[in-house]
Amino acid sequence: MFQKLRVAMIGYGFMGKVHSNAWRNVNRFFPDAPQIEMAVICGRSKEALENARVTFGWNEAVTDWQSAISRKDIDIVDICTAGDTHEEIAIAALRAGKHVICEKPLANNVSEATAMAEAARDASKKSVKSMVAFNYRRVPALAVAKQFIDSGKLGTLYHVRANYLQDWIIDPEFPLVWRLDKKVAGSGALGDIAAHIIDASYFLTSSKITSVSGQLKTFIKERPLPGTYTGLTAGASLGRGTVTVDDTAVFTANFENGAIGTFEATRFAAGRKNAMSIEVNGSKGSIYFNFEDMNELLYHDHTDPSAEAGFRKILTTDGAQPYIAAWWPPGHIIGYEHTFTHEIYDFLLAIKNGSNPSPSFDDGLYVQRVLDAVAVSAGNNSLLTQVK
Amino acid sequence: MFQKLRVAMIGYGFMGKVHSNAWRNVNRFFPDAPQIEMAVICGRSKEALENARVTFGWNEAVTDWQSAISRKDIDIVDICTAGDTHEEIAIAALRAGKHVICEKPLANNVSEATAMAEAARDASKKSVKSMVAFNYRRVPALAVAKQFIDSGKLGTLYHVRANYLQDWIIDPEFPLVWRLDKKVAGSGALGDIAAHIIDASYFLTSSKITSVSGQLKTFIKERPLPGTYTGLTAGASLGRGTVTVDDTAVFTANFENGAIGTFEATRFAAGRKNAMSIEVNGSKGSIYFNFEDMNELLYHDHTDPSAEAGFRKILTTDGAQPYIAAWWPPGHIIGYEHTFTHEIYDFLLAIKNGSNPSPSFDDGLYVQRVLDAVAVSAGNNSLLTQVK
Amino acid sequence: MFQKLRVAMIGYGFMGKVHSNAWRNVNRFFPDAPQIEMAVICGRSKEALENARVTFGWNEAVTDWQSAISRKDIDIVDICTAGDTHEEIAIAALRAGKHVICEKPLANNVSEATAMAEAARDASKKSVKSMVAFNYRRVPALAVAKQFIDSGKLGTLYHVRANYLQDWIIDPEFPLVWRLDKKVAGSGALGDIAAHIIDASYFLTSSKITSVSGQLKTFIKERPLPGTYTGLTAGASLGRGTVTVDDTAVFTANFENGAIGTFEATRFAAGRKNAMSIEVNGSKGSIYFNFEDMNELLYHDHTDPSAEAGFRKILTTDGAQPYIAAWWPPGHIIGYEHTFTHEIYDFLLAIKNGSNPSPSFDDGLYVQRVLDAVAVSAGNNSLLTQVK
Amino acid sequence: MFQKLRVAMIGYGFMGKVHSNAWRNVNRFFPDAPQIEMAVICGRSKEALENARVTFGWNEAVTDWQSAISRKDIDIVDICTAGDTHEEIAIAALRAGKHVICEKPLANNVSEATAMAEAARDASKKSVKSMVAFNYRRVPALAVAKQFIDSGKLGTLYHVRANYLQDWIIDPEFPLVWRLDKKVAGSGALGDIAAHIIDASYFLTSSKITSVSGQLKTFIKERPLPGTYTGLTAGASLGRGTVTVDDTAVFTANFENGAIGTFEATRFAAGRKNAMSIEVNGSKGSIYFNFEDMNELLYHDHTDPSAEAGFRKILTTDGAQPYIAAWWPPGHIIGYEHTFTHEIYDFLLAIKNGSNPSPSFDDGLYVQRVLDAVAVSAGNNSLLTQVK
Repeated sequence: MFQKLRVAMIGYGFMGKVHSNAWRNVNRFFPDAPQIEMAVICGRSKEALENARVTFGWNEAVTDWQSAISRKDIDIVDICTAGDTHEEIAIAALRAGKHVICEKPLANNVSEATAMAEAARDASKKSVKSMVAFNYRRVPALAVAKQFIDSGKLGTLYHVRANYLQDWIIDPEFPLVWRLDKKVAGSGALGDIAAHIIDASYFLTSSKITSVSGQLKTFIKERPLPGTYTGLTAGASLGRGTVTVDDTAVFTANFENGAIGTFEATRFAAGRKNAMSIEVNGSKGSIYFNFEDMNELLYHDHTDPSAEAGFRKILTTDGAQPYIAAWWPPGHIIGYEHTFTHEIYDFLLAIKNGSNPSPSFDDGLYVQRVLDAVAVSAGNNSLLTQVK
Repeated sequence: MFQKLRVAMIGYGFMGKVHSNAWRNVNRFFPDAPQIEMAVICGRSKEALENARVTFGWNEAVTDWQSAISRKDIDIVDICTAGDTHEEIAIAALRAGKHVICEKPLANNVSEATAMAEAARDASKKSVKSMVAFNYRRVPALAVAKQFIDSGKLGTLYHVRANYLQDWIIDPEFPLVWRLDKKVAGSGALGDIAAHIIDASYFLTSSKITSVSGQLKTFIKERPLPGTYTGLTAGASLGRGTVTVDDTAVFTANFENGAIGTFEATRFAAGRKNAMSIEVNGSKGSIYFNFEDMNELLYHDHTDPSAEAGFRKILTTDGAQPYIAAWWPPGHIIGYEHTFTHEIYDFLLAIKNGSNPSPSFDDGLYVQRVLDAVAVSAGNNSLLTQVK
Repeated sequence: MFQKLRVAMIGYGFMGKVHSNAWRNVNRFFPDAPQIEMAVICGRSKEALENARVTFGWNEAVTDWQSAISRKDIDIVDICTAGDTHEEIAIAALRAGKHVICEKPLANNVSEATAMAEAARDASKKSVKSMVAFNYRRVPALAVAKQFIDSGKLGTLYHVRANYLQDWIIDPEFPLVWRLDKKVAGSGALGDIAAHIIDASYFLTSSKITSVSGQLKTFIKERPLPGTYTGLTAGASLGRGTVTVDDTAVFTANFENGAIGTFEATRFAAGRKNAMSIEVNGSKGSIYFNFEDMNELLYHDHTDPSAEAGFRKILTTDGAQPYIAAWWPPGHIIGYEHTFTHEIYDFLLAIKNGSNPSPSFDDGLYVQRVLDAVAVSAGNNSLLTQVK
Repeated sequence: MFQKLRVAMIGYGFMGKVHSNAWRNVNRFFPDAPQIEMAVICGRSKEALENARVTFGWNEAVTDWQSAISRKDIDIVDICTAGDTHEEIAIAALRAGKHVICEKPLANNVSEATAMAEAARDASKKSVKSMVAFNYRRVPALAVAKQFIDSGKLGTLYHVRANYLQDWIIDPEFPLVWRLDKKVAGSGALGDIAAHIIDASYFLTSSKITSVSGQLKTFIKERPLPGTYTGLTAGASLGRGTVTVDDTAVFTANFENGAIGTFEATRFAAGRKNAMSIEVNGSKGSIYFNFEDMNELLYHDHTDPSAEAGFRKILTTDGAQPYIAAWWPPGHIIGYEHTFTHEIYDFLLAIKNGSNPSPSFDDGLYVQRVLDAVAVSAGNNSLLTQVK
């Protein structure tokens, strides 16, 4: 019988809120997972942190993540902070023998990610688990799509077509929040959202990108400084500052398996709110997914007679599909946060079973390498650049 | 400052699971609601109940609902049982001074519903609140649609077109579960799902149905008896029994405001899983909603120039729309259970503010009267029948 | 070798325009049909008729339909006039030994339709062919749907759900054109557009409606008189007149095969332009069609594993589907008028092959009987009324 | 008053069929265009040509295009042959004083296209008109989109996202038809279909592509030789040959106006039949179009309140939209061939009015330069390449 696993979460912003929800509910819907205890929440600003503790339902709040990590009564560290802190926290936690789940992108550059992946490999030898939180792998529709591709339903893969379209900073007066600051965020649309579709393409096809040709572009080069840094909203302006990250990243890609890919990530597609979409075309069929319709997978079976073939809309709320039996009857939609509950469920199962959770820090490192190659290519007149 | 409100929930099936989730999370996302305590869960089968208590996260479990209701430390009673027990429990709870939220349909017939509505009116004089749980009112898309209609965006209303299509009992070997037993369920598709679209039409249009012409039909008249009654699945067959409820209910309707309506509820629409849809057409515009795309509202503005007009798909994940600010950024989908969290949030706010939660037991009684008129009409060669 | 068949068309309004197009192009795309000659166009207003002759490409124009029909060099009479003239023209043409294709609805009432069907049966004995022009039967998507149902893909049929929604007379100042005048048009939405979905339900299911319960409603009871009768637009107002037809017709229906149907036809559904839709649900699958997406058929195969099932969008532009090989490659959309070209192609093939074109005047009579039963039921408090 | 313009058409394959349809019908629907006479059809294979003459409805057939072009009684030359013959025919026709409409792509390379554009400019001085047949400009939905962008509805443009996806050669046993032969076709998906989306992006945005970074890929490198060259189907195999064109072309692009674009053309997207789609995102709104739904334009107005905004589906069958008044009432779909009728209508109007038809040969040359730059970039490790 497993004892309760005690969790410390670092960070309490958007990701902190959605991770808290997952920790709170995972045992209610997935009773086979180890029981957890929401032990400690960590953050820098004492008052806001206490507020978060109460609202999100954690036992304790501490402003010093080092102390939380060094505590004997903590089994799991959940890193929900901005990318510039991942390396330090994750490596410290792994060395302290804590299982680590870390928000994506794994790091702000390849060198940080490499160190983290190395630490994870070392820790793994002592049965300490680590996982990077590419939550879209746990969208049931994408899990179904992966099953289809793995089972050969799509045949030889030819095309991957992946977009991640948002529109939240179209307004030139939207302030210069931390996500637009290269020092904190590493990059813009590239690391924040292109990272997701790079990972999704690997998850679905089991094939890695070997080379890319890309462009990065910043449409709005100056923005008002935010009065105070509090997530996505900002108070009184204190002048203007320079946007140091990309507003959009576009690239073409070659995959190990011979497929060709087109990728686009942007925060400037008016009307597209969280349109993370991916299509894969193969010799025997195709799949299409768009997160704005996250409970649906489109699937075309090219082996059907041509007169009867077409993209079918599979409602991924069927109990025979991954994760869904835990929730509601067919046709009863699930939402964004469920993907995090699924992710933490899988993470807990891996701890329980002694298996390696996926995606690993090495998978996170791979994504970082692709991001890096895109940036290098973009800085080099789009010259086709190998992913190292 | 409000003390924690202590809740007793009766029933632990499908509705018990989704209500438990709402109670567990409401304070985490809506901090302005009174704090609640998940005090007691009640049910008949001791072992299954204890299981539910642990999984759903209630403090205590009791097999005797009367004792739960009579406890001084209980403030709220949440009724999630089958329709044949609503009257007794609800009236007892109200008389004991407990706020009551009761699953729909309010009762299995008009006479029971009338007694309940009367009890609710009496209780209301003592500031005891009651609410019938038509959760679809709390789908943000329908709340937006209501705002549009209330504000006159649709002009004079001409048509209501409402379907609730499912397919879960198409297989003739699907067993004779309680929902197919008139004594327990009152009726079939009529009370279970037509009730929802009747309520939704009233919620949206603020206009009541005055007369109906209907038909009821049972396609599969005999089914295997279930080995044991455990929700929607069943073990070994013990012979066959007669289906005593309708498989489908169809009716046309006249509204107070002069609009005409068509309604259809069925459990035999292959491929339609939980397709609760409603369209309203007015002189200045139209809205369309389908629960299988619950994060979307289609809206046509007929005052746009004809060359530029069309149904727009409003993604109802915008913070300026009802309920949504509590959750995630735009484009981050919410699901079925969120409607219950919203419902319980509104119920708690009404208790806090001393206002009357909506829909009231009187609203539930109105729906029951329409259901009754449909059944009368169906038994009378579809003769147009007044809703009394 | 067949000689050219010489055609006389009566009427030159909307239907005259679309029929002319079909006659002009049928030999260009379907070379196996008999060659035709666009010989004579008939109408009452000399100047407008001559205009139509030139624009539509007919050899001659005559203002006297009787003379056209009595000419020896005419083989086919195509009736595109309003419903109040069908009986006289069609019977005269059939008796004169001309093949007749007649616009729908066949007539303005059952008695006229009965006489026409009788005349058609008599003429048939002399190899004179007749056909009623329910063009939607020749939408490839509906032809595919019929193949699916005929082949048993849908199993036992349970539901028919058919709407025909338009919005062209929502404006109360839209004038009182002939389609709103009972004497000329027979009825409103009922005969004009409900007729189409009644025929489509019969075409698809091969099962007739045996009883109906209906309502008719006129939302706008007075309208400006049109200055001159010229189709759907009107000039200066000459006062106001009474609308003598229904704006909407709604009814429930029972089919011979045990299925139940809901039907709605309206000209008051803002934003719905020509939304003729039909869904059929059976024990093994479902189909859905909407004319506004006329190149698509949705098909759900309920025998697929539940985790992989869903409505597939079959693009009906595949050469293996009915009619399509004559046109363009897959994915190259066809339009409204193509259905008329298909219809006339089938009519010509029947003449060539000596077979009976479908739908026959008897089929048109059947539709008229259903329309009649709906009107009777509507006048009788929606009492379920047998289709005689 | 204008005399009839006499047309000679060169080629009688797929494009010959669809152009013939346009010539046959243009005067029937657009009476303000000059009257035309379908005088001569030209082709190499006598028997097949005569067949085409009869079926398509041309007066004469000649196997020698030079003679057709030199005839005094010919006013217009319509070039529907493969790309390798365009230059010779077009220049000869222009020099002979004939108005020329030429299928796209204008030529097989920049040098041919340059000569043609020069000849067109010379001819223009003598009032001889020329036009390249990018028919998608005449899809009403794209014409509406252009109006929106021209009028500023989209604000500053940020993104163009254009795909042209087909699947007709996925089968590796599909034969090596002329479209897969570089000598005849110039290139594969690049010139055949990427050409369309390049032109569409220019048409919509009025902004040219200045640089591109691309990749070309051939998935199936050998195919069976076709028995005889007859369009897209082939008889007995005569061995295998090498595919000398690209199966897919992908590229990113920079526009004069600062927007960034992603383009993809492929014949290997299973289930996508003729999915020519384009999305444009601007600071004030977005449009989206997909040819498989060619009667629809999606438009998002970003100046709407965020809670009410969304992509609206404009059914482009409204008489107030370009071209549509000539056809049918709202909601009555038009098809692929209508775009050619519109194109020829505009061409005839330009001849009548003495204006310059659009797109001009210079526009065709521009597209050729982009195609060329993509090929150069693809041959140069995707290095960003200027469009000269």
